[in-house]
Amino acid sequence: MIKPRTPSGVMELLPREQIAFQRMLDAIRGTFEAYGFLPVETPVFELTDVLLTKSGGETERQVYFVESTGALEKGGEGLPELALRFDLTVPLARYVAEHEHELAFPFRRYQMQRVYRGERAQRGRFREFYQCDIDVIGKDSLSPRFDAEIPAVINAAFEQLAIGEFTIQFNHRKLLRGYFEGQGIAGDRQLLVLRELDKLDKRGEDAVAATLAGEGFGLEAEAVGKLMAFSRVRSQGHDDALARLEALGDGTPLFEEGRAELRQVLQQLRALGVPEHRYALNLSIARGLDYYTGIVYETTLDAHPEIGSICSGGRYDDLASHYTRSKLPGVGISIGLTRLFYQLREAGIVPVAESSVDVLVALLDDAMLADALALSQQLRAGGFNVETQLEPRKLARQLQYADRAGIRFAVIRGEDEAARGVVAVKDLRRGEQFEATPDTLVARLRESLA
Amino acid sequence: MIKPRTPSGVMELLPREQIAFQRMLDAIRGTFEAYGFLPVETPVFELTDVLLTKSGGETERQVYFVESTGALEKGGEGLPELALRFDLTVPLARYVAEHEHELAFPFRRYQMQRVYRGERAQRGRFREFYQCDIDVIGKDSLSPRFDAEIPAVINAAFEQLAIGEFTIQFNHRKLLRGYFEGQGIAGDRQLLVLRELDKLDKRGEDAVAATLAGEGFGLEAEAVGKLMAFSRVRSQGHDDALARLEALGDGTPLFEEGRAELRQVLQQLRALGVPEHRYALNLSIARGLDYYTGIVYETTLDAHPEIGSICSGGRYDDLASHYTRSKLPGVGISIGLTRLFYQLREAGIVPVAESSVDVLVALLDDAMLADALALSQQLRAGGFNVETQLEPRKLARQLQYADRAGIRFAVIRGEDEAARGVVAVKDLRRGEQFEATPDTLVARLRESLA
Repeated sequence: MIKPRTPSGVMELLPREQIAFQRMLDAIRGTFEAYGFLPVETPVFELTDVLLTKSGGETERQVYFVESTGALEKGGEGLPELALRFDLTVPLARYVAEHEHELAFPFRRYQMQRVYRGERAQRGRFREFYQCDIDVIGKDSLSPRFDAEIPAVINAAFEQLAIGEFTIQFNHRKLLRGYFEGQGIAGDRQLLVLRELDKLDKRGEDAVAATLAGEGFGLEAEAVGKLMAFSRVRSQGHDDALARLEALGDGTPLFEEGRAELRQVLQQLRALGVPEHRYALNLSIARGLDYYTGIVYETTLDAHPEIGSICSGGRYDDLASHYTRSKLPGVGISIGLTRLFYQLREAGIVPVAESSVDVLVALLDDAMLADALALSQQLRAGGFNVETQLEPRKLARQLQYADRAGIRFAVIRGEDEAARGVVAVKDLRRGEQFEATPDTLVARLRESLA
Repeated sequence: MIKPRTPSGVMELLPREQIAFQRMLDAIRGTFEAYGFLPVETPVFELTDVLLTKSGGETERQVYFVESTGALEKGGEGLPELALRFDLTVPLARYVAEHEHELAFPFRRYQMQRVYRGERAQRGRFREFYQCDIDVIGKDSLSPRFDAEIPAVINAAFEQLAIGEFTIQFNHRKLLRGYFEGQGIAGDRQLLVLRELDKLDKRGEDAVAATLAGEGFGLEAEAVGKLMAFSRVRSQGHDDALARLEALGDGTPLFEEGRAELRQVLQQLRALGVPEHRYALNLSIARGLDYYTGIVYETTLDAHPEIGSICSGGRYDDLASHYTRSKLPGVGISIGLTRLFYQLREAGIVPVAESSVDVLVALLDDAMLADALALSQQLRAGGFNVETQLEPRKLARQLQYADRAGIRFAVIRGEDEAARGVVAVKDLRRGEQFEATPDTLVARLRESLA
């Protein structure tokens, strides 16, 4: 006998939770599609040489390799041929480069699949987790106008998820780097300063300021003060965001470019009707990766800032330089849904979903089986998800089962109801009951749902 | 520069195909839920000792193992800790045994995920493919009544898929084994004869008959003749199925048990309103696995018998004997959707789907951008999936793009339309165009869809 168990670092759900999770996936997918994003799915494994185009990175250290039984037995030198994807960005780059001549650009794609990281096992860290990504990829160029569409999609997605108020915050790499230039910080030092600023949340302002003024950086006190003041900028509302951009004074051409793009994003967000409390400038957002070159996004739950960013991304200059000579700039964002679901559950925010089953058709008596089956089919034809009780049990036990399973309606046609030409319905959510004729049953149930 | 490519033996789709595939997944899921099946997802990898409870099987030879970078560097004896699932049945067994006390039985679950097999690479063979499984698991016992629900679900699912007429065929292990007993074939020899009969499709009747009469089996000519006649039984329609069962004469108690269960299945299929041309007795179906103990199913496309069974399964006595002492009988069936999709495409049956995008909001002039964004949001609020053209291009090119992408409607509000307070709509499927006011646009588009 082997103890049935899952590996550590995975999230496996009971059916009720899986239903809630699936509804979140559906809501996100529906929103992605509402904004014209097209679905892509890629294989769980990529060829190792395709996946690991650069070596030595932190993420690459966490790669899972895949070996067939045969290859394992043979042994052999070097890395295995296959490896599990660790994000959806590398597969996207490979996909777009591979299918470059079959895709129309700008290419809006969404991908919602699991990714794999050999994380050290600890609470809240996952080795397998869902990412829900959208990206728009241009060929040669991509208008900054796409930068505003991304937060509009995310606003609609989180509105659908109904997990409380949230704020999509953004900054801009050109604004940052232009500002650094103005302080005499140039070249590679910009990236180093950026990485320090990225630690503001974790280390606090004093520690970061001390580092920047310390030996490694040796910035003047005045420059450090200006960086800190800059990174303290948060807007509240649309006009305030514009005013705060204005108040930053004149800057380098790069700075002005970033500012102009941010103004345009703000303007488009208004045209898209995104409520102004849902977006804000936050000039402390740095996003450590050197990958980003323009706008960067983070999203936080207003009531749960401790969770950190639940949806992040930004603009990048060249998606697939390892795979193609074509220049493929893009902008994208990612929701880490497994982690989000886990944290919402920890915070008590994920409501226990009602069942995906709408109706239990009860069975009191063997003689009524054919009748119960036909009734079930009638309800399915009416659009309801129906479980049929196939073996008679006491009604009280059937109702108790439905209640525990989160099934809202129990439909009962015993011999008494059949004789009277009616069906009894119990609405377990409202604690009500009513009778309907077979002809009116579907309509009555729909009414109750409305 | 690395050549962007996928490993062999995977199916990666372009967006238009992915939309068609996703619609199939959605239709199947919708049907599974309509019949009260609950969703389960399991991690892509299982602990190796949990996955490989028995060794030496054909499938086990095809297992993919998973190793983290760290483990790979360390080397070490024995098999890696993790392995990719090769089907959804072992994960189900592990899941049900692990969560036995948190689940309500009978437990109807569906699972639609990819599975992995280290197949030799060849056309039409996949190393990664979707399975869409339903199973009902009982605790201690499970009424044969559930055996009829499975084909009813499959009938509804394939009806939804609209891939042509199909027939769900079934046989019964008790009927088979009871019939064998009647021919003096007992014990382990039954399984051997079963495996021979399973080859009827591939080897033909003469070859199988010769084997059964040959040295290994040494069956009498009369017994072989009876087996062949038995396995030739196919019913056409409901009453014919009952009549053919009747015509098999009297048999052993096991035979009678199987026959009684099949009669009950037929009776329930009628009560469920499954059209009688969709199901048939086919007494040649053996399903090689010794796993099955009752009804067995196969499903074929009427116009494409060469594809073979597109959906198979059956009844089993004990799902999880490796993991729990509880007896967990079940009945289930599986659609191998990747293979099915591939074969439908080869046979030219998968229609190229229209895009998931319903409407392209065109943009002729920068000055109209805010207007186009607002119009797009209005259409999304009306339930449409909308792509906004964010940079002006010639209208002809925008229409050409929409047409190629399979987007049905293009909505245009240039300065002329704006001045007249209207929106122009091109229905690219019908080759029609009309104008609507902003207030009536959503309703007019819905009308066109109806």
